Amino acid sequence: MEAYFDNAATTKVFPEVKDLVVKLMEEDYGNPSSLHQKGLDAGHYIKETKEILAKEWKVDSKEIVLTSGGTESNNLALIGAALANKRSGNRIITSKVEHASVSSTMAFLESLGFEVVYLDVDHQGIVDLEQLEQEVNEDTILVSVMYVNNEIGAVEPIQEIAEIIKEKNPKTLFHVDAIQAFGKYHIYPKRMGIDLMSVSGHKIHGPKGTGALFIKNRTKVKPIIYGGGQQDGMRSGTENVPGFAGFGLATNIVYEDLEARIVRMRAVKDRLTERLKTLPDVYINEGEAPHILSVSFVGVRSEVMLHALEEREIYVSSGSACSSNKPAVSHVLSSIGLQKNRLESTIRFSFSAENTVEQADYAADVIEEILPVYRKYVRKK
Amino acid sequence: MEAYFDNAATTKVFPEVKDLVVKLMEEDYGNPSSLHQKGLDAGHYIKETKEILAKEWKVDSKEIVLTSGGTESNNLALIGAALANKRSGNRIITSKVEHASVSSTMAFLESLGFEVVYLDVDHQGIVDLEQLEQEVNEDTILVSVMYVNNEIGAVEPIQEIAEIIKEKNPKTLFHVDAIQAFGKYHIYPKRMGIDLMSVSGHKIHGPKGTGALFIKNRTKVKPIIYGGGQQDGMRSGTENVPGFAGFGLATNIVYEDLEARIVRMRAVKDRLTERLKTLPDVYINEGEAPHILSVSFVGVRSEVMLHALEEREIYVSSGSACSSNKPAVSHVLSSIGLQKNRLESTIRFSFSAENTVEQADYAADVIEEILPVYRKYVRKK
Repeated sequence: MEAYFDNAATTKVFPEVKDLVVKLMEEDYGNPSSLHQKGLDAGHYIKETKEILAKEWKVDSKEIVLTSGGTESNNLALIGAALANKRSGNRIITSKVEHASVSSTMAFLESLGFEVVYLDVDHQGIVDLEQLEQEVNEDTILVSVMYVNNEIGAVEPIQEIAEIIKEKNPKTLFHVDAIQAFGKYHIYPKRMGIDLMSVSGHKIHGPKGTGALFIKNRTKVKPIIYGGGQQDGMRSGTENVPGFAGFGLATNIVYEDLEARIVRMRAVKDRLTERLKTLPDVYINEGEAPHILSVSFVGVRSEVMLHALEEREIYVSSGSACSSNKPAVSHVLSSIGLQKNRLESTIRFSFSAENTVEQADYAADVIEEILPVYRKYVRKK
Repeated sequence: MEAYFDNAATTKVFPEVKDLVVKLMEEDYGNPSSLHQKGLDAGHYIKETKEILAKEWKVDSKEIVLTSGGTESNNLALIGAALANKRSGNRIITSKVEHASVSSTMAFLESLGFEVVYLDVDHQGIVDLEQLEQEVNEDTILVSVMYVNNEIGAVEPIQEIAEIIKEKNPKTLFHVDAIQAFGKYHIYPKRMGIDLMSVSGHKIHGPKGTGALFIKNRTKVKPIIYGGGQQDGMRSGTENVPGFAGFGLATNIVYEDLEARIVRMRAVKDRLTERLKTLPDVYINEGEAPHILSVSFVGVRSEVMLHALEEREIYVSSGSACSSNKPAVSHVLSSIGLQKNRLESTIRFSFSAENTVEQADYAADVIEEILPVYRKYVRKK
């Protein structure tokens, strides 16, 4: 049995999405900027994807910019808002548990002279709201907090955060990295007080190379990529029409029966949780999100467990796949206060509605079998 | 008969490329940053595409960064090089006939305080080499000149430009926007003195949303998108694996029999040129490139001609499709000195090796038929 439990890293494209991508590569292959029918036909798909997102979020489709992915969306939101609003202030606030596409961008903004404040989180990864309230001041132009943490599945109190920010300084912009929340929650950015919100296509069974940024009407943001002026000048470059169309379709499919999908994901997560927490020296790093389960298998290093599981066709992640290539201690896990023995032994299982409870049982069986073996091996060394 | 003559705007994906994209969406859908086999399998395609490009260009695959397209490549080259080298000088030189993804980026750099010099071109769109020689000085950190002009097909003397630059200031970086040249010429950036070179996938029958930037070893360039540190930190974000793999395959297909492909394109261009130049008040805007033919049909506005042709399934461009959405006078056509009656009546035909001489004849027949009708109509008004 194969169990792909790395859906927070990337998901398999829906068959219907694949078919649409093929159709657009074969038939409607025009450049949306061309003035003839083939261009208009291609442009229609861009418009439609924006309308799908806008309808789900209850915003205007003009408030949506399509990008090459979540990382670009986060960069556009943060760099674009910081540069466009630098006359209003110099302070930016974020948390200590953001994804690298936020934290590395913050480091870049610091190099430009912005002051960046990093909020602490509690042992479950929830940002310190009192600290937030203290730190938001007249000089604060931007706050960025993620919706769902990609490593542990912590769900941040987004609406409460928005209220605290706007109470302290109504001019401060609020950006939400919703990359792990999109497709798992109904999100209404305007009702929740969000000014900027990033999402990605390939986390919801859409094509890689696609993402979007919600930019609330009248929010000042500078582009980060210049050129032909596509998308009202906010993101130049010929649009990835097949990718964007597929992204729109994936959004429709996921939200069509979101509740049923969540039930399926949660059943897998619950079963695996239930099975694993009975094992000795295994710790669940609690997180609310239905698709992410972080578990420390004390005594077996993450990489060892990852490769042992992969031999049995169970695919998981050690920490966050999106910022791998460099095995380092997870800043998320250390921020929630994990000690060394858990820091180095944590595995992330991440689910989609395509996973089954049988796969959860299979993974639990395998882990029950191999855990003592690997622990014995490690202790002997 | 259909004649898609807008290949400089975008091309139809090769069937083999489409098949590979599908395979990667269905089977090898992993995230290249994941440490398990599905991640490694996906990463393999990224590596392979870089190796294909590197082999064709005779450079090292480590000198290649994959991007979301030509526009991003140009932005990364220009913004990245300007910011990384600003301590060495403040002057940047470019031409008056660059694509918007260069000229708009230059305007952004001017807003940051860089001095940008715009070189004149002659009546064929070739940059003024004497002026270039005069303008390159100790303070010049970067020169950017396109290889093939996207509107008129002018081919710039790239190697000569490189020699002039390096003679005056060996530290000055030379960026070439080769988006319209890639797939039409063998390009060896290192031999030609190029430090940075941008290309795009969808202009050579590869997927939209793909591009590359050659960055010569030891050239200082800052990223413009920050995050997980993919591609040695030069371009963060989960790679568009299906797109990049398709881009590599398209490169292989195009360069496998480049000479034969050029013969086919040129045959179409030559036939159409030959037929059109016999018509009254029709002027060819000469350009060397095998795939671009710019023609002024005096007395009929570009948009009118474009839509008249599209009714007969002939798809062309008025000016440059990549920067349309705003009908403005072409800066390229005005830079080469065209008068108003030609400025407003110019059409770009652009070919691929998939086009045929029969299509050229068909287009010429249609134009012969409709030209007098539209001229009569216009004059009567």
